[in-house]
Amino acid sequence: MSKVSPLAPKNGFPALASIAGVRFSNISAGIKYTDRPDVMLAEICEGSSIAGVFTKSATRSAAVLDCQTKLKSESMSSGAYALVVNSGNSNAFTGTEGFLAVSKICSNFSKELNIKEKNIFTASTGVIGEPLAWQKIVKGSSTLKVGLSDEGIKGAAEAIMTTDTFAKGASRKFNINNELIKISGIAKGSGMIAPDMSTMLVYIFTDAKIVRSLLQNIVSELNEETFNSITVDGDTSTSDSLMVIATCKNGPVINDKKSPQTKIFKDELRLVMKDLAHQVVRDGEGATKFIEVRVTGASSYSSARKVAKSIANSPLVKTAIAGEDPNWGRVVMAIGKSGANVERDLLKIKFGEVLVAENGWISPEYSEEKGASYMKNSEIIIHTDLGLGYYKATFWTCDFTHQYISINADYRS
Amino acid sequence: MSKVSPLAPKNGFPALASIAGVRFSNISAGIKYTDRPDVMLAEICEGSSIAGVFTKSATRSAAVLDCQTKLKSESMSSGAYALVVNSGNSNAFTGTEGFLAVSKICSNFSKELNIKEKNIFTASTGVIGEPLAWQKIVKGSSTLKVGLSDEGIKGAAEAIMTTDTFAKGASRKFNINNELIKISGIAKGSGMIAPDMSTMLVYIFTDAKIVRSLLQNIVSELNEETFNSITVDGDTSTSDSLMVIATCKNGPVINDKKSPQTKIFKDELRLVMKDLAHQVVRDGEGATKFIEVRVTGASSYSSARKVAKSIANSPLVKTAIAGEDPNWGRVVMAIGKSGANVERDLLKIKFGEVLVAENGWISPEYSEEKGASYMKNSEIIIHTDLGLGYYKATFWTCDFTHQYISINADYRS
Repeated sequence: MSKVSPLAPKNGFPALASIAGVRFSNISAGIKYTDRPDVMLAEICEGSSIAGVFTKSATRSAAVLDCQTKLKSESMSSGAYALVVNSGNSNAFTGTEGFLAVSKICSNFSKELNIKEKNIFTASTGVIGEPLAWQKIVKGSSTLKVGLSDEGIKGAAEAIMTTDTFAKGASRKFNINNELIKISGIAKGSGMIAPDMSTMLVYIFTDAKIVRSLLQNIVSELNEETFNSITVDGDTSTSDSLMVIATCKNGPVINDKKSPQTKIFKDELRLVMKDLAHQVVRDGEGATKFIEVRVTGASSYSSARKVAKSIANSPLVKTAIAGEDPNWGRVVMAIGKSGANVERDLLKIKFGEVLVAENGWISPEYSEEKGASYMKNSEIIIHTDLGLGYYKATFWTCDFTHQYISINADYRS
Repeated sequence: MSKVSPLAPKNGFPALASIAGVRFSNISAGIKYTDRPDVMLAEICEGSSIAGVFTKSATRSAAVLDCQTKLKSESMSSGAYALVVNSGNSNAFTGTEGFLAVSKICSNFSKELNIKEKNIFTASTGVIGEPLAWQKIVKGSSTLKVGLSDEGIKGAAEAIMTTDTFAKGASRKFNINNELIKISGIAKGSGMIAPDMSTMLVYIFTDAKIVRSLLQNIVSELNEETFNSITVDGDTSTSDSLMVIATCKNGPVINDKKSPQTKIFKDELRLVMKDLAHQVVRDGEGATKFIEVRVTGASSYSSARKVAKSIANSPLVKTAIAGEDPNWGRVVMAIGKSGANVERDLLKIKFGEVLVAENGWISPEYSEEKGASYMKNSEIIIHTDLGLGYYKATFWTCDFTHQYISINADYRS
């Protein structure tokens, strides 16, 4: 494993609140890695609500296709659930063998845990196009069952890492109608991260009592402004999965989109999702700078997103930031190529609080020294105001360094 | 200047046929570089036909906007023409000062050469957002005039280089109706290269007698399959310009889209444009491998282009090739994320003649050894057949190396 990212949270993996109704375990099955956990199991109580968002890739993995089918099923709401995730192999583009692997894992864990096969969800992350040694996962099922624990979420976060340099977790505790509610989530991902939809694997658990359809609406909406607003390299994985599981053990019933209870829950879930999304960027392959790209004053939300995404995905912007070069001309280039509605002479560009350009040219108060000094920060804000309207969007990304090339030019070797 | 790209043409700058009716010169004006030519002048005879294609960037340079306006003008056809191009500064995003600079250059060269101001075309390439020292260009105008020569095209190619490691030229001689016709072109560009439209600066001259509207149609069409089908880093310049100038000095009149004469001319022009486009990729910043991405069997041309572009722009594919890693899973990923109409189980992927995958999985005849051995070539062909129809598209790109990061993390410093 590589050195921990310099952008990793200072205090290490946070203490995650345990969620009533979910237990975790992990094993080292030797799928690809040795000497480290690579399979996690989560057992989820009956009566839970499950929502999911998955990659739109046309070559998505067998596991993703299986999850999507199962989440569509109307009969999925009865009984307990389980989640089995492995790292080291993505089981994507593995033909009929890939579907067989998913089926074998599901049927085996169904028997082992006495949970309906259609209530078993799987995911796989790692190399594409190599057969998944599902036998190793199946062989570990009884050990995984025995190891289940309320406190096992950290081990689960570790088991799903691939090129990640730190395990990712986020947690919130809050009250709704004076009843304590908890949300705890884990994520993995550091390369092949791009919007539509992004994020590799994210699993978030809460004990809130929220109905499934409302949970799905909230998750889809929040996904747009969190995991769908990050990019590391513009590449989209074949395995990206986000699942949010509510065990419905605590608090009032949340079933009305417009209720104050829903608002509280949504705001808290947003914080957890944003935190995890930022952690994925902070672990971007080779990253040394965390970059927030803010676009305001757009004539539409779609324009705002186009400009933000274009800046966040530009290799020239990202290499300039790696070199601590305040090369704002490259930001202008990225705005120009975005395809969004833009008026050159209304553009305003700021690096943090440093006004760089306005009215279609460099600002008279800007100096290279100010720009260069700002670029030394490890967290950079690039703010573009288009001066055309009231829509805005924010993307998060990281810089583009030698280390990215090093990691990706010999990932498999 | 960096070491010459390992992918540069083996025999250096080719001998370019001189074109009757065009003369070239260059000077070292000290715009940004010292000790090297940085301004070129081409003087073009009366009666020439001029066609152009320019960047679609919303932040395109003052020079590009000026050229576009002039080429629209109906009155542009009388009198001689001139082309003034500088490197070292792109005069893009320089507000009203940028327009002033273009105007000063045009009016000055108009007087110096006794050519109408609206017949003077300019271009600038280099850093964005810094004021262009147009005075230095104006000051050199008499020296440029005095230096004009039929044989000066190589010097012109050298004067427009920025991060290029070699000057780019291509030439063809051929007969139409037993009359000798020549085409000679130059290009610059090695970073900020991406389709829509790509290519930095390209100037192609021919003595053929072709009418302007037909020339424009041919150039626009050929641009799509040449300069608009290359990518180095997915970034699009604010200054990209392609101009094709026919001095109408030799051969039969070419004015009928469907005539055999038009076909010959178009085929020869395509060869020159393709050659120059490939040279731009071969000088891609940090490139060590020249990559042809072929897509066949698509259900539409647009689908074929989407898949080819997605593979050619993927940092993960391009870093794998840099590492000589036959990581075909990343090709699958890039196909998947392209948004094109794709059926996973119909996909066939080949590296050169090595069949890698078919029917949605790795081919039984493929071995890592075969793939790894192929990847050692300096020219790589990635061929994807979608198995859906008869449309095809080809993109050209280069690998993504440490050197790209080195060049771009300190380009301005």
